[in-house]
This record gives sequence, structure tokens and C-alpha cells, in this order.
Amino acid sequence: MISILDLRARIGAGSLTPRGAIDLCREAIAARDPAIGAFVALDPDPAIPDEGPLAGIAVGLKDIIDTAGLPTQMGSAIYEGWRPRADAAVASRLKALGAVTLAKTTTTAFASLDPTETRNPHDPGHTPGGSSAGSAAAVGGGMLPLAFGTQTGGSVIRPASFCGCAAIKPSFRLIPTVGVKTYSWALDTVGLFAAGVGDLAYALAAVTGREGIETEAASAPRIALVRQDFAQAPEPAAEAALLRAAEAAGRAGARLVDIALPPELASAWARHPEIQDFEARQALGWEFTEHGEALPPRIREHLEAGGRITAADYDDARRHAHRARRVLKALFEEVDVLLTYSAPGPAPATLASTGDARFNRLWTLMGVPCVNVPVPGEGLPVGVQVVGRFGGDGRTLAVAKLIEDALRR
Amino acid sequence: MISILDLRARIGAGSLTPRGAIDLCREAIAARDPAIGAFVALDPDPAIPDEGPLAGIAVGLKDIIDTAGLPTQMGSAIYEGWRPRADAAVASRLKALGAVTLAKTTTTAFASLDPTETRNPHDPGHTPGGSSAGSAAAVGGGMLPLAFGTQTGGSVIRPASFCGCAAIKPSFRLIPTVGVKTYSWALDTVGLFAAGVGDLAYALAAVTGREGIETEAASAPRIALVRQDFAQAPEPAAEAALLRAAEAAGRAGARLVDIALPPELASAWARHPEIQDFEARQALGWEFTEHGEALPPRIREHLEAGGRITAADYDDARRHAHRARRVLKALFEEVDVLLTYSAPGPAPATLASTGDARFNRLWTLMGVPCVNVPVPGEGLPVGVQVVGRFGGDGRTLAVAKLIEDALRR
Repeated sequence: MISILDLRARIGAGSLTPRGAIDLCREAIAARDPAIGAFVALDPDPAIPDEGPLAGIAVGLKDIIDTAGLPTQMGSAIYEGWRPRADAAVASRLKALGAVTLAKTTTTAFASLDPTETRNPHDPGHTPGGSSAGSAAAVGGGMLPLAFGTQTGGSVIRPASFCGCAAIKPSFRLIPTVGVKTYSWALDTVGLFAAGVGDLAYALAAVTGREGIETEAASAPRIALVRQDFAQAPEPAAEAALLRAAEAAGRAGARLVDIALPPELASAWARHPEIQDFEARQALGWEFTEHGEALPPRIREHLEAGGRITAADYDDARRHAHRARRVLKALFEEVDVLLTYSAPGPAPATLASTGDARFNRLWTLMGVPCVNVPVPGEGLPVGVQVVGRFGGDGRTLAVAKLIEDALRR
Repeated sequence: MISILDLRARIGAGSLTPRGAIDLCREAIAARDPAIGAFVALDPDPAIPDEGPLAGIAVGLKDIIDTAGLPTQMGSAIYEGWRPRADAAVASRLKALGAVTLAKTTTTAFASLDPTETRNPHDPGHTPGGSSAGSAAAVGGGMLPLAFGTQTGGSVIRPASFCGCAAIKPSFRLIPTVGVKTYSWALDTVGLFAAGVGDLAYALAAVTGREGIETEAASAPRIALVRQDFAQAPEPAAEAALLRAAEAAGRAGARLVDIALPPELASAWARHPEIQDFEARQALGWEFTEHGEALPPRIREHLEAGGRITAADYDDARRHAHRARRVLKALFEEVDVLLTYSAPGPAPATLASTGDARFNRLWTLMGVPCVNVPVPGEGLPVGVQVVGRFGGDGRTLAVAKLIEDALRR
């Protein structure tokens, strides 16, 4: 993979120019993407700033993120050739930091569950996950140092785990969703993919203007091992990765406790789909009503289901989520982070499914930061998920870094 | 003014067709709009459904609300001639209910403070208010039975007060902002303008699919008179309107108490501009960076100010807002609604300002429903503001209706 921190160090030392760094990515894309299919559009002649904390960093943006200079097609024929007027807030911010928004990456239609044709960079017969398929595959496949996706259920952490790269779904609205196609306004969260946790921290600090994010250090963090029993058991590979990560954290000085989540969290987890689908049916009202025949089957099913959810059920689901957030906040008085599965196992051996978000959706609903840390091992990548308190993105990244470092030793 | 309930009754009785109802509006627009200037686009040949709870209702949409069939120009040359691909969620919903999205209404640039050329329908030398200038003027000027605007500070309740129509800024996100240009994602709220409170309730119930909204009845409501001392005194006309509304409510059986708001609410009020401007600078990053010279002076000032607000100050402002919401929630254990000023006085005698949102912005930040009830009297219109608890839109409308009825007696 291509590391942001490595590129920036070489640029700082004068051994690489920003243009050279962008060219590295272009060459990697030309060599590898024909077998992966992570991109829907590349800027043939982008402006390449010489200055800025992200100068020389080529970025991929999931194709539901508006760009004025490149098409934004939502993974759907309904938006074929569509050119928004403005850049999304995050795209504009990236340019202001010196980054090059080089590419649009594949997305399932409207960031739902119908697979793209993108292949897992580690094995072309396996899914890269979704919905941020192209962003995860671009970074995991060593073609870009930074890519952005969105998560409504598990669309950042799951594909990162499948593709073997680091990723963060930050606290809710830490990065604005302005100019990002909405699926569920209570859930949609913009997230980052990068080679390692240090790269994520550097980029997130720059994008949010929050310098503290990258400097917080984790010393003897308190980590709760969480298995999310309400979401069924994972595959052995995911359990093994969790144990390996826990052991590594322990060796690095972390204090580990095993906890069962309070029942309010299981209740909230169960209600996530109602909030998601009720909102999606409204958010995509025009697409459903005027172009329903052009929608692929899974998203159409979800939108039809959304139309059957009553406002009363939706309100009740939101009350459950609200209660769970309070309970979770209290839990973070006792521990710094939770450590849990990023996905049920490695990427499934199919291109007909993007995998299962059941270990992700509670945390999206809670709005808390989640980091995927790849766990080195045999076979296809498997990651673990570090979950922190709302607004504690820096602390969460610091503990994730401690685990990443310990796993690499 | 044209009443939704009246049109619907006539259509139900067979004395008016939906097409006839739309034609009434077209004729009123042709006759009155040349002196008012409430519209930026009219659909010359819209589909006119025969069925649906809003069949025969011509609707105006503030020109920051996306429409696939009409231009959406944000009150700015930057978006001249711009045609979005999709309808905003609320526009799509309105069509599904049988309404005709006949017109786009004037907005200040990106719903900020630089005035439009729209005139107050009651006196062309006075502002109609802003930023939802055209929507308020269209309804207050008797040209449309229903129009939609947005409020980030006081952009629904204030122009409704100035233009003499009823309006509701519902609970935060009761109506999705999907497809509505963002200024501040924590504050932007879609609201409705109509001839009377009953019309608002009918339309809001239909748009949200929440039938309870229109049937809740207010009996002997507990009303707290609130003067928002932290926001400076209003003009005598606003104070007189408040007293008249309070007296009318008392005659109708309401129990009135005078209260001073707890200090947490004053603190939150003071921090509203930081949240608004910090977010606006990001939300409009592309416009500010790429087209700054095309922005009018007031919004440019706000965006420049937004760039100077630190993330730490923004976070602190949000914590103040969070505390204030808790305090306000407790206050609603004691009373059903608050009754306060909608604006500092009648519409100022100028087209160079849209007036002052100081009596509105706290309630936008709290996310609670607010209804403007016009208070009949001499001179230019003045309204009062009925504020309810979060999610209590039906109860708030019911008390507003009780006050409206009592004032008309």
C-alpha cells in the first residue's frame, strides 16, 4: 500500500515532488486497476498544488460524493454522465489542503447493497465489500494513499477489513456530508481509507482542522473486548483476529476486560434498519418514484420496505437509539475503547454480495468513531474494529495505533 | 390569502376542480406578482393530479430546494440556469400527494442575509423578510396557498410575521433537508407557509405522513409568556401583539404564566452564530473558494467569519446547545408551549435589510417546533411565535390554532 506519511516525508525531504507522488499513483492504477475495477472516473489533467499538508496526496472519492470537475454517477444509470455544479464540502476541503482529487471510486447503487463489479485486490474471486467498494479496493490494492467513502450500515469498516487497509468512520458529522448523496440522514457518515492508522490520523486532522487528533497518545488504555452476541457468532478467522489483536494490545500495556453490552444496545442494533429504510425511502423519493425500474433489486426492496414503516415505528426506533447512546456514554466512563469484529470473517468468495454489516451497524447508529485495524495473518485480510466515545476520534485512533504497532512487532 | 382547507373543501364538494384551483393561483400571480417579485420560476405546464390530499394545491418552493423540472438557482449568479438532476425529498413527496410544485420562490443568496428584490405584499417599500422572502410574500400576498422555505436563524418565522401569514418551522428533521442547499447542517430546517394554522396542520400531516398532527386538540393549555430578555427589547408593536395574543389565549381557557428563561438558554442563544458560520464555511467551501467574488457582501462576511472560528470553539458552542436542550426539555414538563415574539416588530421600511432574527435563532438551535400566528391589528402585520417541545408539532399547532381562533373572535 501507499502511505500518506511516507509520501509526505519524501516530499518534505525533497526526494519526491507532489507531481511525482501523483504519478506514482497513476502508474499503480494503470498497472493494477484493470484486474480490480476500483474506479469510475480519473481526472486526466488535475491541478497539482505544491503546498499544503496534503500536497502530493492523490485522493479517491466514492462516486456519491459530488465533484464539479468529474462526473458523479451514484453507481446508477439514473445518474449516467451527471455533473454536479459544486464540489462536496469534503472535496473542496481536500483541494484547499493541497490534495489532488484524482479519482471517483465505484459505489454500489446509492451506497446500498447491490454489488459493483469491483474485485477484491487480494483475490479477484472475492468481493471487496461495499458500499464503498472502490475506495477500499483502491487503497488496499496499493493504488491510492487516501480514499473517502461513506457508512450507513457498515460501508467503510467492512470493505476496509476485506481489502486489508486501515479506515475510520469518524464521529457523526465530524466530516460534513454536504454534497454527498443521502441514503439516511441520521446514519450516513463520511469515512477515510488509508494504508495505516497513522496515515488516517494525519489526514483526518488536516481535513477537520483538528490538530489534536494526530497527537493524542495512548498509554495503558482500558480496552473492553466486545463480541456483539446479539449479532450472531462470527467465523473463526474473525474470532482469531480479535484474540490476536487483544493479545497484542495486552503486550503493549493495555488493560483488557471482557464485557457484555447492556440490553439497550442490542435493542438499538435491532432497530437500525427501520431508521435507515424509513429515511432512505424519503431521501430517494424521486429516484424511487420516477425511475424505480432503473433501480437494482436490493435497493428497491429496501425502499419498498421503507415505505411500509410507520412514522410511529420510526420514532420508537429513534427513542431506542437515544437511550442506547446514553448507556454507551456511561460505558465509556469505564473504558477508553471497545474492541470488536470489523466483519464476520474475510471477504466472501463471491461477487454477488458485499458481505454483512451486522458487526458495524450499531456503531453507525451510535455515531461513535470506529477504526479498522488490519490484523496480519495467513489468507485474505481480516481486521478488528476499535470503537471509541463520541467525539473521541483522536483517542480512538491512538489506541488503534497502539494495537497496529503491537501487531506488527 | 388562499386557504388550503378552503380549496380542498371546494374540491371535495365538486364546486372546484384541481385544475381550477391551480388556475386561481396562476391568475393571482399574474395580477399581483409584478408589484411583489416573489417568484424566480413558474412551471408553464405542470402535471395536475386529480387525486391526493394535496390535489389542487399549488406550491412554491424556495429556490434552494432542488427541482428536476425547474431551475434551482440558490439566489446566486453562481447557479444561474442550474438544473438539478433530482427533486428534493420534500418536492418529490409533495408531487406524490397530488400537489403541483408550480413555482420557485426568491431566496437571499444561499439563504443568508443579502436581500432579494422581493417586496412586502402589504407595502412595497418594506422588506418581506428573509431568507425565505418569496415563499412568505407568495402566501402573504394571496398568490399561493402553500409554500416551503428554510430556517437557519429566523428565515421562516420572521418573514411570515412580516408578510402576515401563518408558518411553522417544525421539529428538526421532521421534514428531510435532502436536496436542499445546506448552510448549516445542525440548524437548517424546512418550514411551511400557509394562510392559517389549520392549513399548516393539514399540509404538515400530509407531507410527513403523521395524521396525529392535525387532530390534536388544545384544551386549557399551559402557556408561558417568554420575552427573551437576552435578545434586547422588541418594538412596541411586537410587545402589543404578544399581549393581545396572551389575552386572547386567556379568554379561550389557556393558563398563562410569565417566566424568565434559565441562563443556559441565553448562553446557547449567544453561541448560535458560531455553529452557523463554522458549518456554513465548510458547507459552502466550493462557492467561497472558487466563486468568492460572485458572493454578495453579507454572506461573504459570514463565511470569512466562519473561517476564523476554531473547532474547539465550535465544539464548545455545541455543548452549550446540548445543555440548553436538556434544560428546555425540563421546562416543557411545566408548560405546553412558550409564547414569544416572532420578530422585533413589523417589517422594516427598507429593502436593504431582511430584518433581525434575534427572537428566532435560539429555537432553531433547540430544534423545537415554532409557529407564527398573525395578530390582527392596525398597520403592517405582526405575528407571535408559539414554541413547543421537540417532536410536539401537533400540540404546538393545536395551541397556535386556539390562539388564532381567539384572536379572530
